[in-house]
Amino acid sequence: MSDTNPDAGFVSLVSAGPGDPELLTLKAARRLAEADVVLFDDLASGPVLDQAGPQAELIAVGKRAGRPSARQEHVNQLLVQYAQAGCRVVRLKSGDAGIFGRLEEELIALTEAGIPFEIVPGVTSASAAAAAAGVPLTRRLTARRVQFITGADVTGTLPQDINWAAIADPAVTTVVFMGQRSFPQLAEGLRAHGLPGDTPALFAEAVGHPGQRLLRTTIDGLARELRGAAVTNPGLIMFGPLAFHHQVPQD
Amino acid sequence: MSDTNPDAGFVSLVSAGPGDPELLTLKAARRLAEADVVLFDDLASGPVLDQAGPQAELIAVGKRAGRPSARQEHVNQLLVQYAQAGCRVVRLKSGDAGIFGRLEEELIALTEAGIPFEIVPGVTSASAAAAAAGVPLTRRLTARRVQFITGADVTGTLPQDINWAAIADPAVTTVVFMGQRSFPQLAEGLRAHGLPGDTPALFAEAVGHPGQRLLRTTIDGLARELRGAAVTNPGLIMFGPLAFHHQVPQD
Repeated sequence: MSDTNPDAGFVSLVSAGPGDPELLTLKAARRLAEADVVLFDDLASGPVLDQAGPQAELIAVGKRAGRPSARQEHVNQLLVQYAQAGCRVVRLKSGDAGIFGRLEEELIALTEAGIPFEIVPGVTSASAAAAAAGVPLTRRLTARRVQFITGADVTGTLPQDINWAAIADPAVTTVVFMGQRSFPQLAEGLRAHGLPGDTPALFAEAVGHPGQRLLRTTIDGLARELRGAAVTNPGLIMFGPLAFHHQVPQD
Repeated sequence: MSDTNPDAGFVSLVSAGPGDPELLTLKAARRLAEADVVLFDDLASGPVLDQAGPQAELIAVGKRAGRPSARQEHVNQLLVQYAQAGCRVVRLKSGDAGIFGRLEEELIALTEAGIPFEIVPGVTSASAAAAAAGVPLTRRLTARRVQFITGADVTGTLPQDINWAAIADPAVTTVVFMGQRSFPQLAEGLRAHGLPGDTPALFAEAVGHPGQRLLRTTIDGLARELRGAAVTNPGLIMFGPLAFHHQVPQD
């Protein structure tokens, strides 16, 4: 960054991690401390923002600003405008920015406007949830593959183009992001494609936040739990040959 | 941790991230600073260890100690013995400990010995490589799934139980860990199962280390590049509908 034109702004697309400020990287904490402006989503708010310096302007670009596309265009405009004004801009994204972080649109806007930028990777909520539950995401022999999918497309429902041979595989750990609402439907598809309903499943609510709750169950059990339930906290779902017997002691 | 018996040891299974010490989490840095003993692998060595305090005993448990199983048993014994002696033990693992980190064996050993422990999640090299290359791991519509696989089983060759329908899917980003040696063979299988050879591929060598090198190519191009090549640095392979036009400026 020190080599770039000091008059030109710079955008850091910073991964905030799962929510626990201790799970920020040193680099993310430094970028926040040095930022002139921080654009943040609702999910990345809270104690993570305390790492920003007193000089930083904090701007929420949350879900209440209108239609998704209008919101995204507005965020793109803000990023470009603040950078063109010479600011060090931090665009804070929850989890790892590269995983279901809608990074693409902002990368295109920055590239088209010729704004220099960097991506600061972070801890995905999938890793944080697994760590909290005391289960590895991969296991020798039984889970040599791990995959992350989304349970909601742009319309908020289960995507239609699911590769069931990939998802209903008994030898993979699958993590579902934004999947609470559609999980009963996903579970039906899994059963229809041969994955046993008693496959271990984990529901991790508010990972890395004070209200964190872990539910160790099965695919069938979780489908029953979530059917018709109101979604208050964003939750992560994990299923596959998870070994729940190594439980991390709560401290 | 403060609530546990002060005479009893404690083991933190700490993710070191991809190698760049700036990509340690604040929690990992704190655990290292407070550790009495740090057991580290070759891959997690280097500048990350500078975060350990002067009191810390640093113990390499690398690949030279003999057969993999003997080595793993030895690591398990050391973890248990140091913890039983009342030490704050950090077991440092490269990347995210839960992803191809061979966590299972150590979790079992600690659980069986009744040693309290925690898992500190970290930045996986997959996220770091994608960030360095300026590509998201997921993209709306074109890559709604991301998966991590290993290119080497315990014998060092391509696993026999690959789910080709999952891997040769054109709408997924796949990251291959430990896959340099077997990639030409994997690429053949991908082609045989219908994935076009001109699918974008990224080879990221020494991610987060000073010698980092990124090669933006295709599956066919990378197979040619890696066929018969000596493996000097551990590298990560990524393929799928990656959009290389958003390149992060080098600084």
